[in-house]
Amino acid sequence: MLRLECLFCRKKFPLDVFNPFCPLCREPMVVAYPPRTRTMALERELSLEKYRDFLPLASVNKKISLGEGNTPLVPLYRVMKNHNLPLVLAKNETMNPTHSFKDRGTAVAVQKAVSLGVKKIGTVSTGNMAASTAAYGARAELKTIIFFKKGSSLEKILSTGIHGAALFQVKGDYGELFRKSFEIGRKEGIYFMNSVDPMRIEGYKVTAYEIFIGLERRPPRFVFVPVSSAGHLVGLIRGFQDLKDEGFIHQMPFFVGIQAKGCSPLSRAFSEGRNRFRRVFKTQTIAHAISNPDPPAGNLALKLIREAGGLLMDVTDREILAAQRELAELEGILADPASATTLAALVKLSRDRKLLRGEVVLVVTGSGLKAMEALKKHNIYPKLLKL
Amino acid sequence: MLRLECLFCRKKFPLDVFNPFCPLCREPMVVAYPPRTRTMALERELSLEKYRDFLPLASVNKKISLGEGNTPLVPLYRVMKNHNLPLVLAKNETMNPTHSFKDRGTAVAVQKAVSLGVKKIGTVSTGNMAASTAAYGARAELKTIIFFKKGSSLEKILSTGIHGAALFQVKGDYGELFRKSFEIGRKEGIYFMNSVDPMRIEGYKVTAYEIFIGLERRPPRFVFVPVSSAGHLVGLIRGFQDLKDEGFIHQMPFFVGIQAKGCSPLSRAFSEGRNRFRRVFKTQTIAHAISNPDPPAGNLALKLIREAGGLLMDVTDREILAAQRELAELEGILADPASATTLAALVKLSRDRKLLRGEVVLVVTGSGLKAMEALKKHNIYPKLLKL
Repeated sequence: MLRLECLFCRKKFPLDVFNPFCPLCREPMVVAYPPRTRTMALERELSLEKYRDFLPLASVNKKISLGEGNTPLVPLYRVMKNHNLPLVLAKNETMNPTHSFKDRGTAVAVQKAVSLGVKKIGTVSTGNMAASTAAYGARAELKTIIFFKKGSSLEKILSTGIHGAALFQVKGDYGELFRKSFEIGRKEGIYFMNSVDPMRIEGYKVTAYEIFIGLERRPPRFVFVPVSSAGHLVGLIRGFQDLKDEGFIHQMPFFVGIQAKGCSPLSRAFSEGRNRFRRVFKTQTIAHAISNPDPPAGNLALKLIREAGGLLMDVTDREILAAQRELAELEGILADPASATTLAALVKLSRDRKLLRGEVVLVVTGSGLKAMEALKKHNIYPKLLKL
Repeated sequence: MLRLECLFCRKKFPLDVFNPFCPLCREPMVVAYPPRTRTMALERELSLEKYRDFLPLASVNKKISLGEGNTPLVPLYRVMKNHNLPLVLAKNETMNPTHSFKDRGTAVAVQKAVSLGVKKIGTVSTGNMAASTAAYGARAELKTIIFFKKGSSLEKILSTGIHGAALFQVKGDYGELFRKSFEIGRKEGIYFMNSVDPMRIEGYKVTAYEIFIGLERRPPRFVFVPVSSAGHLVGLIRGFQDLKDEGFIHQMPFFVGIQAKGCSPLSRAFSEGRNRFRRVFKTQTIAHAISNPDPPAGNLALKLIREAGGLLMDVTDREILAAQRELAELEGILADPASATTLAALVKLSRDRKLLRGEVVLVVTGSGLKAMEALKKHNIYPKLLKL
């Protein structure tokens, strides 16, 4: 019987797909593992099969995989040279089936949904998670319900709707919408696999295992990752913690979670030494994918990043756009602004030379193709030529 | 010394990166191999390293790879059920670094450019090839020149320009532009790695090897691929031919090359039993990525598909959009209209039950995200919801 655990009160509760939050502290829970030795099956093809022993899945249903994961870890030689840095690598999550890291989480959550016999799934999203959930829902023959915030871009609506999901544009506060979705879910039997769903977080752990294998069984010294709901960061920390628990690594990486200055509740709480963040009421950033004023796993991330070792910081839109341009111009990687925060933060921290010894992994979470608005900021105009 | 071969007059010439056409017959040439035994190195990570022995590369420069290839071969269970078909699989080329199959060709051509000391590369493209060439050019620190046809969409221009390429919008006929580019290239020292570049075609061979490995060392019975310049089809045929030459397989797959009815010079020539196609003067199709009125490897494809076994056919825009919708709704794969032609053709052919025994591989060449215009045709509207 799968149980969830609240890392704040250390209480455990049976899995309830309609509510991922602790009934006592209201913080998001994570999967509780019974102590056992876990091994990797690297000869397998699917990423979920390779690391199934580390996941809350009794078996992997290959029929509902889209071949997620197994993304390349690309050394950024020109970036290294440009900033005189040691080994910097990009974990390119845009090479997932729907072009973002969300597929890793969706893949695990949909496996769980199908194994539990759930027939309806949903999510609340402004972008990547919507497309990912709709795609996996389609493949698994599940009825899929997507709640968009009013004002979501046409390209995001179309690339989600094409998968046959029921789309709703919802008026009102996004945080409110997130909470309401669980009420609706319980009433209507819809498993809302939102950003901090415990199964999603399990899926993000796989990225940590792949980084470890890609570095020839060593952990990197640093992991840089954009932070929105903070579910991704929590998953990465837990993934490396698994590796430590099993004796694969002896030291955890130092985690750098990055927010946009225009929406930075967690980096503010971190720099002010607080354990709990304060929600933001006005957001203003080009990095829409991480513009979350009230991150549901925010307090959990603050707790874990202090325990594991790391920091939360923010970067400006100007720094983000410069980093986006640099990744594209020097390395041929088209990251969205949210992902570009990782390079922006690295450049910022690299001015303090002592901080950066050892390998740095930047997790590139989403494709610049899905953020046309930011591309328009780069003043790109073709010349006219008459032959 | 690398030589190119014209498969029409069987003459061989030394490699000239400024002219991939036979000086005698004007048809595109392919790489000529000295007879030797070639082996696979499947324990390697990069696709080019795994199959280097089959490629015209003395070594693989890992610094300029973006982790292309190694794409999943995804069984389409719901499509199979829907049309009562045997095993159908999608080779999902949208999971390449710039989200299209072009990266495989660009990767090999840029390896060659760098090893030859070429400093400037270019291409003539309306979309996927432009972004791919610009990305790899950036990574390899090459000056990259892109010729767009006038009227190319903003999203394509931006996602190419972000890589720092010099962009030119050119007035005039696209076929003319293609030919002119080689003149300009020779004069200015720019290696124009256009659609039928022999190194590109070598890169596409790797897809054939991966399909063979993915099917546990068997060839599929059928390979369906969209046809534009015909370079991709030529590469796939040559890849399977390599496998046959080396004794890995005993029978070639049956190749189905698909065009859009609104631009189908090759399928017309094929159905009329002609060896040479006639260029088209008016094109009208939603599948922009394969709207090529004068495919430079057209005659070569007609020749090879007759020799290897296969057919060329076309499908209507209506059939294309239905197939695009089906792939998205049943399988969670967002293909562009060009790629959706493969399923449209399969559905069409599957009415003749005898034709389709054995595994079918559909090569999904590009992402639906890069063809917003087509997504707008699907009448997707979210409902409004007030909480």
